[in-house]
Amino acid sequence: KQQQRWQTECRLDRLNALQPSRRVESEAGISEYWDLENEDELQCAGVSAVRHTIHRRGLLLPFFTNAPDLTYIIQGMYSRGIQGAVIPGCPETYESGQSQQSQRSQQQHQKVREIREGDIVAAPAGVAQWFYNNGDSPLVLVSFVDVGNQANQLDLTARRFHLGGNPQKDQRTEQEMRLQSRSRRSEKGAGERRNPNGNIFSGFDVKILAESFNIDTELARKLQSKNDRRERIVRVRDELQILSPSRIHEEERRHEYRRGYDYEEYNGMEETFCTLRMRHNIDRPSRADIFNPRGGRLTTVNSFNLPILRFLQLTAERGVLYKNAIMAPHFNLNSHSVIYITRGSGRCQIVDDFGRNVFDGEVQMGQLLVVPQNYAVVKQASSRGFEWIAVKTNDNAMRNPLAGRISAMRAMPEDLLANVFRISREQARNLKNNREEVTIFSTQSSQQGREY
Amino acid sequence: KQQQRWQTECRLDRLNALQPSRRVESEAGISEYWDLENEDELQCAGVSAVRHTIHRRGLLLPFFTNAPDLTYIIQGMYSRGIQGAVIPGCPETYESGQSQQSQRSQQQHQKVREIREGDIVAAPAGVAQWFYNNGDSPLVLVSFVDVGNQANQLDLTARRFHLGGNPQKDQRTEQEMRLQSRSRRSEKGAGERRNPNGNIFSGFDVKILAESFNIDTELARKLQSKNDRRERIVRVRDELQILSPSRIHEEERRHEYRRGYDYEEYNGMEETFCTLRMRHNIDRPSRADIFNPRGGRLTTVNSFNLPILRFLQLTAERGVLYKNAIMAPHFNLNSHSVIYITRGSGRCQIVDDFGRNVFDGEVQMGQLLVVPQNYAVVKQASSRGFEWIAVKTNDNAMRNPLAGRISAMRAMPEDLLANVFRISREQARNLKNNREEVTIFSTQSSQQGREY
Amino acid sequence: KQQQRWQTECRLDRLNALQPSRRVESEAGISEYWDLENEDELQCAGVSAVRHTIHRRGLLLPFFTNAPDLTYIIQGMYSRGIQGAVIPGCPETYESGQSQQSQRSQQQHQKVREIREGDIVAAPAGVAQWFYNNGDSPLVLVSFVDVGNQANQLDLTARRFHLGGNPQKDQRTEQEMRLQSRSRRSEKGAGERRNPNGNIFSGFDVKILAESFNIDTELARKLQSKNDRRERIVRVRDELQILSPSRIHEEERRHEYRRGYDYEEYNGMEETFCTLRMRHNIDRPSRADIFNPRGGRLTTVNSFNLPILRFLQLTAERGVLYKNAIMAPHFNLNSHSVIYITRGSGRCQIVDDFGRNVFDGEVQMGQLLVVPQNYAVVKQASSRGFEWIAVKTNDNAMRNPLAGRISAMRAMPEDLLANVFRISREQARNLKNNREEVTIFSTQSSQQGREY
Repeated sequence: KQQQRWQTECRLDRLNALQPSRRVESEAGISEYWDLENEDELQCAGVSAVRHTIHRRGLLLPFFTNAPDLTYIIQGMYSRGIQGAVIPGCPETYESGQSQQSQRSQQQHQKVREIREGDIVAAPAGVAQWFYNNGDSPLVLVSFVDVGNQANQLDLTARRFHLGGNPQKDQRTEQEMRLQSRSRRSEKGAGERRNPNGNIFSGFDVKILAESFNIDTELARKLQSKNDRRERIVRVRDELQILSPSRIHEEERRHEYRRGYDYEEYNGMEETFCTLRMRHNIDRPSRADIFNPRGGRLTTVNSFNLPILRFLQLTAERGVLYKNAIMAPHFNLNSHSVIYITRGSGRCQIVDDFGRNVFDGEVQMGQLLVVPQNYAVVKQASSRGFEWIAVKTNDNAMRNPLAGRISAMRAMPEDLLANVFRISREQARNLKNNREEVTIFSTQSSQQGREY
Repeated sequence: KQQQRWQTECRLDRLNALQPSRRVESEAGISEYWDLENEDELQCAGVSAVRHTIHRRGLLLPFFTNAPDLTYIIQGMYSRGIQGAVIPGCPETYESGQSQQSQRSQQQHQKVREIREGDIVAAPAGVAQWFYNNGDSPLVLVSFVDVGNQANQLDLTARRFHLGGNPQKDQRTEQEMRLQSRSRRSEKGAGERRNPNGNIFSGFDVKILAESFNIDTELARKLQSKNDRRERIVRVRDELQILSPSRIHEEERRHEYRRGYDYEEYNGMEETFCTLRMRHNIDRPSRADIFNPRGGRLTTVNSFNLPILRFLQLTAERGVLYKNAIMAPHFNLNSHSVIYITRGSGRCQIVDDFGRNVFDGEVQMGQLLVVPQNYAVVKQASSRGFEWIAVKTNDNAMRNPLAGRISAMRAMPEDLLANVFRISREQARNLKNNREEVTIFSTQSSQQGREY
Repeated sequence: KQQQRWQTECRLDRLNALQPSRRVESEAGISEYWDLENEDELQCAGVSAVRHTIHRRGLLLPFFTNAPDLTYIIQGMYSRGIQGAVIPGCPETYESGQSQQSQRSQQQHQKVREIREGDIVAAPAGVAQWFYNNGDSPLVLVSFVDVGNQANQLDLTARRFHLGGNPQKDQRTEQEMRLQSRSRRSEKGAGERRNPNGNIFSGFDVKILAESFNIDTELARKLQSKNDRRERIVRVRDELQILSPSRIHEEERRHEYRRGYDYEEYNGMEETFCTLRMRHNIDRPSRADIFNPRGGRLTTVNSFNLPILRFLQLTAERGVLYKNAIMAPHFNLNSHSVIYITRGSGRCQIVDDFGRNVFDGEVQMGQLLVVPQNYAVVKQASSRGFEWIAVKTNDNAMRNPLAGRISAMRAMPEDLLANVFRISREQARNLKNNREEVTIFSTQSSQQGREY
C-alpha cells in the first residue's frame, strides 16, 4: 500500500539532463553529488543522488542517512566489492577469518555482502553502511537517497551522519550548498554558519566517550578523528581482513538455495531487517520482465521480488535498449522516476499536463533525468544503445504504456478512439493494433540483438 | 489504516458556501470548476471539484488526474451513461457489439460500466476515464479530486492529463488561475507563462509517435488534435458503438449475484484494480445506514463496502433530510468533509476550536461546503428538504454526534455533565436522554415522510 | 509499518532544555503549555506538550485535539484519578453507582479508567477525554500532542476543542501565541483577531441546540457556559458519583487476567477503539526491557505491547538512571524523541549530522528536551539520579546504541574499525568489547542500586 511522501513544489516548465553539482576527492576515491537543493526537478521528486568511485583497496567509511538509500553497482566488469550494514539489534553472525581460537568471540560482526556489477543494495533510513573495493579495478556505484520518503522525519535535505572519519571538504561544500539554497528561498538563515566538525563522535565530550566505551581518553580521542584528512573514501593499509571467501561462497550457495522461497517466507511476523535480503542482481538478463530480441529488455524489482523495498517504498527498473530501439511512450501512474544512464545515450521527450514538451534532448551516460509522476515520456536509443537504472518512488510503481500490445490505446473501444481523434474506424483499428510488441519496440533501423 | 495527507494551511476564520469559480463550454456540454487554488477552505481540505453537464450523445474525453477521483452521478432521472476506465495491465475483456467475426480480435477493450443517477464511481490517481451520455436528457456529474491524497506526489494542484482532444479554453483558464494563485503567494513565478498545448500526444515529436504506433505521420498528427476546437466534451457522430445492452445486463445480473460476497472476497492477494468494483449506488434507500421515517436517511460508503476506497482513502456519504429535519450537531474525527448540495436547501452552522461560529447560512442546491476536520457542524433542512453527497478524506471516516441516542452526551456520566455545565442531575438526565433518535432528528415542524 | 509525518523545517543549530512557555490557572488546578509554535525543535519534532496539575476534586473538562494524545501520570505517589474517553459508536457499558432501579437505563455511560502514577493513557485524534482527581494529593500529568501525526489533517497547530466550560484565559493566551508565531512567519494574518468563544456549543444557535437535544432554551444556554469563569480544571461540588470502586476492581481483575492475550487477540477485524486497551503502566520495574542493577532500567511501550499505539504511531520510553550512571551514546533510527524529565537531573549531549555539538547541558526535573531523528545523544545521571518519560514519533521506534554489548561498534569487523579510526587491532578490540553492559552503563562513581 502506497505511502505519503514529502510535500514538494513542482516548477517543471523545463527539465534538464543533470550532471553532478558537486565533486569531492578523497584519499582513495571520488564522490560526485546531485544535491536536491540545486535542481527543481530533484526537489519535486524528493530524491538526491551520489556517485562514488572507489579505488582499489578503497573503503567508503560507515555512514547513515535520514532517508532510504538504494545503491546500484555500475562497475566494474571485473571488480568486486563488499558491503556491510549496521542494523540495531541484529546478531553478530559472522566471524573473522583469523582462527586465533582463544579470541574467537571478539571477532564476530554482522553479516557482510559481496557485491558485483548489476547489484542493487537497499538500506533503510538510519542503517549505517560501508563499501569496500577488494577488486583490481575501480568500484563505481550510484546511490539514490529518497529524501521525500516517509521514513525521513526531519526536513527535505539529505543528511549524512558519519560513524568515523572527518570528511572536511565534503561537509564544508555541503554546508555551502545548503546555505546558498536556503538564502535563495528566504532572507533569514544567513548568520547560521558554524564549522562542520566531522563524525558523530566529534561532538561528544572525550571523557564521556571514554567512560561509555570503557576505554582511555587517548583512544576516545581517536574516535573523533580530528586530524584525519582522508575524507570519505580511505585507503586500507593491507587487504581488509574480514572473512574468508569460502564462507562467502557458502553463504552464496545458501542464498541460491533459498531464493525461490523469499516471497513465501514473507509475512508480517518475520519482517525484521535482520533476515530481509538487502541485495539483488537486477542486471541478469534471465530476470527480465519484458524482453524483445530486436529491442532490448526491462527488469523491475519491487516489494514483490525484494521485500525490503516495502519498507523503503521504492521500485528499481533496469532498462537496456538496443541501438535505435524505442521504449513505448508511457507515464508512471503512482511514482516519480529518477533515471541514471549507465551506458550509451538516447533521445528522451517528456510532456506535461498541458501537453507541452518540457524535455527533448539527448541523454548521455553518467547523466540523471527526472520524469515526474504522470508526465508522459518516450525514449529512443542512439546507435550506441541506451542503458539505465531508474529508481521510482513507490514500492509497486506502475507504468501505463500508450502504445503496443498492452497499452492505454488497446484498452479503449475502437469507436471511442474514432470519435476522440476524429478518424475512421479503420484508422482507429490501426492505432490500436499496428504495434504488436510490448513496451520495448524494434524499429526499422534497429538490428537483431545487442550488437552495438 | 489512515494515511497521511498533504500539509495544508488552514485559515478558516470564515467559511463560505461555494459556487464554481470557472466555467468552460464545450461542443456537447459544460464544465464548472471549484479550483482548490481559489478558496482557503478547499486548500485546507485538499479537495477540488468539477461539475460536468454532458448533453445527449456527449462524450467527456479520456483523461486522468494526479489524484484519486470520486464521481457522483447527480442526474438525470431518465438518463443513462457509460463510463470507461483505462487501467494498465488489465485485460481487454469486452468485445464490441458488431459481430464481424473476422475482425473480432481487434474489437476488444477493457470493461465499461453503465452508470445511473445515484452512482458513485471511484478512480485511482493516474487511471484514465471517459464518460458518455447515451440517454436522452443531460447527464450531470460532480467529481471530487482529492489533491491532498498520498497518491499525489507532485504539488497541491489538480493536474489533468488528456489522452485526446485539445481543451484550449479549459487549459488557458486553468493556467490563468494557477498563475494568479501563485503570484498571490509569492512574487516569483511571474514570467512562467507558456501556451498550453492540448493532450499528451501534442508534446511528442510526430515521427517518434508514428514509429511508436507503427502508423503513418498523418495519423500520428491526428493524435495531436491541434485543430480540434471541441474542448473536453465532444459530440459523438452516431451513437457510440461499444457493446450490446444485453451484455451489460448480463454483467449487471452477475454483479447482483456477486454483491453479497464483495467483502469476503477481499484480501491482500487479490487486490488488483482489474477486479475491484469501481461503481456503487449510494442513493438506493434500502442501503441507508440510518433511516428515520420522520427525518430522512444517511448512507455511508467506505472501504468496508466498496474496497477500492481503501486505495483512494476516501469515504462517501449520502444525506437526505426531509423538510425541517435536523442532522445532529456532530464532528468528523478523522477527516474533512466536502459537501455538495444535490437538491433543496438547508441551514448549516459550523463552529471552530475556539467555540466561534465560522459559518451560519443557507446552503443551496449546486453549492459546495467544506467542514474541516474536528469542526462541529449542524444542518437543518428548509421546507424544501435538503440532500447532499459528501466526500470525506479518510477510507473509514468517523462521525461523533453530540446529541441523540448514540452520542458524546450519552457516553458521559450524568454527574460529570452536571458538574461540567453546572446543572442539576435532573437536567443532565434530560440532556442525555430527551432525544431518542439517532443522528437524523425529526422536528415539530417536520412532516411524516418525504413529501416536499 | 511506518507512516508519513508532517513536513517540518528543522533549524537545529542549537537545542535547549525547555520550560513551559505559557501557564494558565484554573479554579482547581494549573495548566502549563509547551507550545509548538514557540520553539524550533518542537516544530521540527511536530510535538507539543502540556502539564496539568489537578487539585483534589479537580476535573479537567472534556476536550479533544486534532492529533493523538499520549498522557503520562507523573504524580502522585498516593494519588488516584479517573479518566474517561468519548468514543463514537462504542456502547455505554458502565452504570452509575446509585441504584435507583427505575432510572437505571438512564445512568449508563462509556467505560472509565482508574489511573495511577506511572500509567500512560493513549487517545486517538478526535477522541474526547476528561480526567478527575479523586485522591487527596494533586494529580500531575504531562500530555504529548503529536501534531505532526498523519491523523491531523488541519495545519501544524495543536487545536483543542472543548465539550464544556469556557476556558477564556486559556483560549486568549493561545490565540495570542498563535498570532505572534504567524506574524513572525509572515506579514499577513495581522487583522485576523476574533474573540475566542469557549466550548463547541457556544458557536451554535441556542434554538437549534434546544431542538437538537429536545430541551428548553434555558438548558441549551447552559451548554454554552458563557458565564463560566472556572477555566479548564473545575472543582466538583461533592465527590463525583460515577461508579463503585468494586466495579473498577472487578474490571482490573479482568484486565489482569486478559493481559497475556492482548497481542494474540489483535487482528485487523477486531481493531475497534471500543475494545483496545488505552492504558498501560510503564513504570512497573518488572516490565523493564533493559535492567542493570548498577545502572538503572529502560522500558519501551510500542504497538507490540500496547496495540492502540499502532493507530497513534507513537512509542513511549521510560528511563531510570541511578546516580552517575550513563545511557549509551545512541541515535534513534526512525523517530524523534521528546523527553520529559520526571525526577532528578542529568547531563545530556546531542550531536548533529556535521559532528557538531548542538546541546551540552544539565537537564532538570520538569524540563523538556527534543532529540531529533538520527541525532546522536548521550545521557549521564547526576548524583540525584535521572528519570524521564520519552515519546517517540513511530509506533516501533528503534534505537541504535554506539557502545556496549548490542551496538554499532560490535556490528563492525575489527579490522574495519582499525582502518576507520587508524588504530591497532588491539585497540579496535577494546573499542568493541571493553563495555559488556547493554545500553545502561554503570560508572566507577555509580553505586549499587537506586539509593539517591
